[in-house]
Amino acid sequence: MKPGRLPLRPIFLLTDFGLEDWYVGAMKAEIHRRAPDATIIDLSHGVPPQNVAAGAFVLNAALNSVPSDAVLCCVVDPGVGSHRRAIWGRIGTHYFSGPDNGLATPLLERASDFELFEIPAPLLTPEEPSLTFQGRDLFAPAAALLAEGYPFHLGPPVADPVRLSLDPEETADGIRARVMLVDRFGNLITNIWREKYEAKFDQPFEIQAGPLRITQISKTFSNVPAGSPLAYWGSAGTLEIGINMGSAAEIAGKISIIDVVFK
Amino acid sequence: MKPGRLPLRPIFLLTDFGLEDWYVGAMKAEIHRRAPDATIIDLSHGVPPQNVAAGAFVLNAALNSVPSDAVLCCVVDPGVGSHRRAIWGRIGTHYFSGPDNGLATPLLERASDFELFEIPAPLLTPEEPSLTFQGRDLFAPAAALLAEGYPFHLGPPVADPVRLSLDPEETADGIRARVMLVDRFGNLITNIWREKYEAKFDQPFEIQAGPLRITQISKTFSNVPAGSPLAYWGSAGTLEIGINMGSAAEIAGKISIIDVVFK
Amino acid sequence: MKPGRLPLRPIFLLTDFGLEDWYVGAMKAEIHRRAPDATIIDLSHGVPPQNVAAGAFVLNAALNSVPSDAVLCCVVDPGVGSHRRAIWGRIGTHYFSGPDNGLATPLLERASDFELFEIPAPLLTPEEPSLTFQGRDLFAPAAALLAEGYPFHLGPPVADPVRLSLDPEETADGIRARVMLVDRFGNLITNIWREKYEAKFDQPFEIQAGPLRITQISKTFSNVPAGSPLAYWGSAGTLEIGINMGSAAEIAGKISIIDVVFK
Repeated sequence: MKPGRLPLRPIFLLTDFGLEDWYVGAMKAEIHRRAPDATIIDLSHGVPPQNVAAGAFVLNAALNSVPSDAVLCCVVDPGVGSHRRAIWGRIGTHYFSGPDNGLATPLLERASDFELFEIPAPLLTPEEPSLTFQGRDLFAPAAALLAEGYPFHLGPPVADPVRLSLDPEETADGIRARVMLVDRFGNLITNIWREKYEAKFDQPFEIQAGPLRITQISKTFSNVPAGSPLAYWGSAGTLEIGINMGSAAEIAGKISIIDVVFK
Repeated sequence: MKPGRLPLRPIFLLTDFGLEDWYVGAMKAEIHRRAPDATIIDLSHGVPPQNVAAGAFVLNAALNSVPSDAVLCCVVDPGVGSHRRAIWGRIGTHYFSGPDNGLATPLLERASDFELFEIPAPLLTPEEPSLTFQGRDLFAPAAALLAEGYPFHLGPPVADPVRLSLDPEETADGIRARVMLVDRFGNLITNIWREKYEAKFDQPFEIQAGPLRITQISKTFSNVPAGSPLAYWGSAGTLEIGINMGSAAEIAGKISIIDVVFK
Repeated sequence: MKPGRLPLRPIFLLTDFGLEDWYVGAMKAEIHRRAPDATIIDLSHGVPPQNVAAGAFVLNAALNSVPSDAVLCCVVDPGVGSHRRAIWGRIGTHYFSGPDNGLATPLLERASDFELFEIPAPLLTPEEPSLTFQGRDLFAPAAALLAEGYPFHLGPPVADPVRLSLDPEETADGIRARVMLVDRFGNLITNIWREKYEAKFDQPFEIQAGPLRITQISKTFSNVPAGSPLAYWGSAGTLEIGINMGSAAEIAGKISIIDVVFK
C-alpha cells in the first residue's frame, strides 16, 4: 500500500464454481490486476451448482463473521447471459456485486437502506464480456472497483432487487422444512431458524428426517451415544440433523424435506 | 513491505495436486518463508492428475486474466524425479518455474522471446530435494526468488523448451476434437479454438458428442430449452458442449473425442 | 500495516472442514476482522473427517515448511462441545490454537519447551460460543490474537497436553504399519518413518499392501515400469506405496494396514 492511501476494502468471494476448475482463479487474477493491494478471502465456492437459495443461505450463515465495509462478490448465476440484471452497490454497511437473483437477500434483510445499480458493462471491460462467465468479466472487476472506493452510482438504479424467502412452510401440525445444505460431515442443515422457532420446541415434537425420528434437541454431538441421531441448533443459526460419530446423510439418503410435528 | 523496497511480483499457482492433501499448503509455506510479502494466488489445483495437456489448457484459459510481470509456478509433473529438466526464467512479460514438459506452452506461444534456465537445485535447497515432490523443494523456492527479482541466469540455459500442440485434428469432412476438461457443471470443454475455427461454423454442421447431436451455435444457456444440449464459444476461448440446467457429462458419459462434421 | 507496528505472525490453517462448506471461510473472516493485516495460509482442509491422527500426521508432514514464529490454527475436533480442553500458547518456536486432543503432537515432539493454556472463552467472544463450531468461535479468534502478539497466559495452564503415538507396531518378523492417508494420486502413505526405519530395509523384505507385493525401495516413480507398484520414501518422511502412472489405492482397495516382513 502506498503511503497516504486508504486501505482497500477486503473482498469476500462466494460462488458455486467449485475449486476443480480455473474459474475462481481467473476471478482472483482479475481482481488482483485491478486492485493488487486488496485482500481476497474465499467464503465458499462449494454452493451446490446453480442453487441460488443455497447460495443465499450460505451467505447468511457466513455473514456474521464478515466485517462491515467488506465487499461481497457473489456468483451463483443460472441465468447468466439472460435478461437478469447484474448489480453492484452498497447494502447497509457492506458492498455487493453479483447477479440480481435473490443471492443478496441476507444482506438486504439486515440492512436499513441500500444503493444498488446495474453494472455498466462497457465501463469495466474493454471487450464484450462473456455471456457464460460474468464472474470473471463483470462481477470480479466490479468488486475490485468497490474495494477501491470507486463511485458506483453510474448505471440505471435498481430499486427492487430480487428477494428470496428462506423460511420453512408452516403446516397444520408443525413445520415442513427444506434441507438447504448437507455439509461435509453429513449433517442435514435445515431452514428452521433458531431465532424464530426455538420456543416452539418447548412442546412435545417429532422430527421426521427420512427414516430418522428425533424427539429432543441436543446441545452437541457427545450428548447422544455414538451412532445415534440428534437435532441441534447449528452454527448457521438453524436446526441441523446429525449423527454422533456418523453421517446423517448416509442414513437419511438424499432427502430434501424434513417435517416437524408438534403433538 | 518495508519502505523503499520494490513491491514483489505476485505468484500464481497452477498444479494437479488437488486440495485434499497438504501439497499445496507446503508449497505456499515454502514461498511464504522465503518471500513473506509476496501475494500468492491459486489459479487452479484441479488439473486432472498428471495430465500435462490439460494443465497447459487451463494455463491458457486463465492467462488473459494474469497481470504481466507475474510469476507462474506450475506443477503437473508425471516425470518428477526422471531426466526431464526443471526450468525457470522469463517468458515474454511473465516469469515461470516448473517442469520442462510442455506446461509452459501457452506462455511460449504468446511471447516474442524468453530466457529460460535449468534450476540449480543446490542453490535453492540446503538438503537434497525430494525426488517425488519437487513442487515443494524446487519450483516453489524458485518462484519465491523470481518474485523477489533474483537473477535466474545461473544454471544451464534452455533454448528448446518442450512445446505441446493443443490443436484438434482436421479430418476429411471436419474436425476431431479432444475433450480437454469437463468442468464442475458438466460442460465438455474442447480444443476447437474460436479464433481459428469460428468462421467454419457458418456452413451447415453436426457436432457429435457421444449420443448428443448439435447443429447450431448458441450464445448462452438460456438460448435453448431446459434439458436441451447446446454448443457455445466458452470462456476458455474454445467450443464447449453443455446442457441448459443440466450436465452434458452425465448424458454424454466419459467421452474424450468430439467430432464436427461439415455438410 | 501502520508505520512503527511490528509485522504480524502469519497464521497457518489445518482442519478437516473441507472446502465444500463455508466453515473455513467463516474462520478466515473471523481472523480477518480481528487482524486484517495477518497473512492466512491454508496448510490443508482435507484431513479425513474427525481423524485426529491423520490431522497430526499432516501437520507433521507440512511442518518443515512452516516458518518459525508462525501460528498454527488446527481444528480436527470430534470432541467439540465435550469436556476436551481448548488450548492456545507457544510450543517451541511456533504458536498453536486448537483442541487438546493430540493434534499438536508434532509440535510438542519437536519443541524443547511449551507454554499452553486453556482458552478463556469469554475473553474472545462476546456471546456464548457455539458448541459445534469452535473453529470459528474460539480457535480462529485465538489465532488472530496470537498473530498480534497478545499475551496468552490467562486461562488455566495446561501442563499435560494430549500426545498421540504416530509410530507403527513392531511385530515378531517386521512392521505392521497404518495407512495414515491416501493422497489424490492414490499413493498409500504409511507411518513407517524413514529416519527410524530406513536402515532395516537393507535386509531382504516383503511389503504386503493388500494384493500388492514389493521387495525393493525405489527412488522415484520412473524407476519401475508404468503400471508397476513401488515403495519409496515419500515427501512426508515416511514410506509410501504407489503405482507408476497409476493408483495404488485403486488396486489395493480401502486397506488400512500394511505389513512389512523381514526375511
